[in-house]
Amino acid sequence: MVIPSLIQHKRDGRALTADNWAQLVWAYTSGKIPDYQISALLMAVFFRGMSPEELAALTDAMIASGDSMEWDGLGMPVVDKHSTGGVGDKVSLLLAPMVASCGVAVPMMSGRGLGHTGGTIDKLESIPGFRTGLTMRETRAQVERIGCAMIGQTPQIAPADRKLYALRDVTGTVESIPLISASIMSKKLAEGLDGLVLDVKTGSGAFMPELERSIELARTMIALGEVRGCPTMALVTAMDRPLGRACGHTLEVEEAIEGLRGGGPPDLMEVTYALGAEMLVQAGVEPDQAGARTRLEESVSSGRALETFGRVIEAQGGSPAVLEDPGILPQAGAVEVYRAWRDGIVSGVEPHRIGRGILELGGGRRTVEDHIDPTVGFVLTVKPGDKVRRGDPIASVFARDEAGIPIGMAALEVAITIGDSGKLTPLISHRITAAGVEPLAAG
Amino acid sequence: MVIPSLIQHKRDGRALTADNWAQLVWAYTSGKIPDYQISALLMAVFFRGMSPEELAALTDAMIASGDSMEWDGLGMPVVDKHSTGGVGDKVSLLLAPMVASCGVAVPMMSGRGLGHTGGTIDKLESIPGFRTGLTMRETRAQVERIGCAMIGQTPQIAPADRKLYALRDVTGTVESIPLISASIMSKKLAEGLDGLVLDVKTGSGAFMPELERSIELARTMIALGEVRGCPTMALVTAMDRPLGRACGHTLEVEEAIEGLRGGGPPDLMEVTYALGAEMLVQAGVEPDQAGARTRLEESVSSGRALETFGRVIEAQGGSPAVLEDPGILPQAGAVEVYRAWRDGIVSGVEPHRIGRGILELGGGRRTVEDHIDPTVGFVLTVKPGDKVRRGDPIASVFARDEAGIPIGMAALEVAITIGDSGKLTPLISHRITAAGVEPLAAG
Repeated sequence: MVIPSLIQHKRDGRALTADNWAQLVWAYTSGKIPDYQISALLMAVFFRGMSPEELAALTDAMIASGDSMEWDGLGMPVVDKHSTGGVGDKVSLLLAPMVASCGVAVPMMSGRGLGHTGGTIDKLESIPGFRTGLTMRETRAQVERIGCAMIGQTPQIAPADRKLYALRDVTGTVESIPLISASIMSKKLAEGLDGLVLDVKTGSGAFMPELERSIELARTMIALGEVRGCPTMALVTAMDRPLGRACGHTLEVEEAIEGLRGGGPPDLMEVTYALGAEMLVQAGVEPDQAGARTRLEESVSSGRALETFGRVIEAQGGSPAVLEDPGILPQAGAVEVYRAWRDGIVSGVEPHRIGRGILELGGGRRTVEDHIDPTVGFVLTVKPGDKVRRGDPIASVFARDEAGIPIGMAALEVAITIGDSGKLTPLISHRITAAGVEPLAAG
Repeated sequence: MVIPSLIQHKRDGRALTADNWAQLVWAYTSGKIPDYQISALLMAVFFRGMSPEELAALTDAMIASGDSMEWDGLGMPVVDKHSTGGVGDKVSLLLAPMVASCGVAVPMMSGRGLGHTGGTIDKLESIPGFRTGLTMRETRAQVERIGCAMIGQTPQIAPADRKLYALRDVTGTVESIPLISASIMSKKLAEGLDGLVLDVKTGSGAFMPELERSIELARTMIALGEVRGCPTMALVTAMDRPLGRACGHTLEVEEAIEGLRGGGPPDLMEVTYALGAEMLVQAGVEPDQAGARTRLEESVSSGRALETFGRVIEAQGGSPAVLEDPGILPQAGAVEVYRAWRDGIVSGVEPHRIGRGILELGGGRRTVEDHIDPTVGFVLTVKPGDKVRRGDPIASVFARDEAGIPIGMAALEVAITIGDSGKLTPLISHRITAAGVEPLAAG
């Protein structure tokens, strides 16, 4: 295998063979190809894309670089959800226990936050004692017992993805639909799932802001799932404003608990129920979305979903008492209300700005080594289109200490715009399956 | 300077600033940026190209990474020629002494061969004792004395180019017009020239086979030269067949000597005189091409050009006796004539195949470390369009020993095609200056 010729081949728009990809991934992961050749190849892929066959081969090779989970004899269907990430997106915290309490196994494997988006694992770790680094054996045992585990990426799953992602991150090759798809799907497919639901965010705060690109990403991942025999579908959801009200680690855990108690913000609950209903139908435990949704609502109203979350927290080393008294979570040292500075209509709540604000308050990571303060963040009580009057409290800043308050206030000032008009875009705009793209709401 | 953002910037089609390029080249050359980021950036440049301002900044930065030659007080105009490389191209060996013998200084700096093309430096080193590794001070002293030096690339000239080229070579980023232009022009402009003539090859054996791309390359290099105040022009010459008859190191030195004695093959002499005439006009020692050509022809017929070559050889450690008796050059161990296998017309003499044949005979480099056998190669006595009869001798194989003969014969069999028709394309097809592209012959 002559690497420069393979790079040229790809660069000139020709497809590499499945064998080429298998060997490239194997050789790179075992340190036999230098970073500088792979980064050039990845940039060529950025420009040339990949054929479906190439993408399947790359994904297979990334899965084959590590172990896969096995669920033989579990006696339950196994499904998971993946979100492309956003601000205020604490859906996983509610969804995993809700779906698990309906008799579907959810071995939820999530990432950490980086840049302006938060990570589920970081949020869970704001619960004192909560341990996300379960081994594959521990994960299987916990899923057998409780139906759910909420874990970080284990080093055994798709190590090639870890190495490739680290390289992409420093070489300007992150924003490539095939590379994103292979990265996500290699990890998800290695979970040995019976079904996968994708929450593909769109809008200014999404990883991929343009709707067409979000849809293309969804379709690419769905095709990859289907090829490997894992039924995969996606909902396209709005990320032109934060989801729910709380943005920040402990604040989002508190809001998730509120949601599992039946009191979450309507947009958060709507997205959670919609994704959950798809998971139950995919798992075959409910024939249609309407029935599935009713069942999920009952899992909340009956307290079963909250109870499952409690068992997960306990199993993973945290105290389930947090569900009764979220006040035992670490708390911000200073809080201040932010008020509307004029009468008008909220024209924008920019998630990217909110995410940057959390970063500036010390609650995010600029590099993977950064330590985060889980207590800081924002609670935003308005959405675009809301009417406000001057002096209305519309948000709160949660900072480590008083010195952080002006930083948070300044972030809100650029994030929230108030004008004479404003409109909320549809929360869930498209439903995408292997069969095609179904618009759910007019833009 | 955040490198991943600069890479993304370029990747997304936006221009980097002159400062960005200056810092990138400086930081890369001093080891402060890893190869994997630069290779990704170079691949982005491959796809996105560079604006004239970016290219000038990159070239300037590459020049600034090393020393430049100074010719103050020399009392002669200083010009050079650069060829994009081909098979059988020994023009430099004749041209440098010819032009120097007309009162124009020629500090000819050349490269080594790699892949299917030969290098002037390798050819010169087939003369026993000939030393091409002159220092800048030695070069200046020799040019003062003889008007000419023929040297390899000194490590002081554009070290950034050496590092970047080595990286491009292994990352599939060689064939980029801006990167090729910056690489060539940084080295040539660091020679401190009063004028530069480019021989841009076109056709199947050229580095850049398509005519339009050859012209684009020429125009890009001319623009770079003009911006830096170095008058630059180009002739586009045919490389769909080898130039002259001899292909191989000592064989080409012998043919060059023959040419300086007035007996070279017509196509070789034509290209040499045409380039030389441009150099004399550029240097201002002749007002027009016709007069310049007459002067060059006189430099050959009078023996002055040959005498200058002899002084160069002597100054650089070789024996000028080689000019009287080329037989003192190392000679091939086995020679065999190759004959036409049918009546017909030569339809092709494929330079790439001839170059590969030399490589297979041991006379080329697959990697920069390879040792070469200077004695091997081919003499080809036919050109496309020539009528041949079965059994006519049309070429000779020069091999290290008898075992090499069948290898050479096999190379000739695929290189020379005989059919019922064949045509010679124009030898010099375009003359390109800052003013524009002038076609010289109908295709």
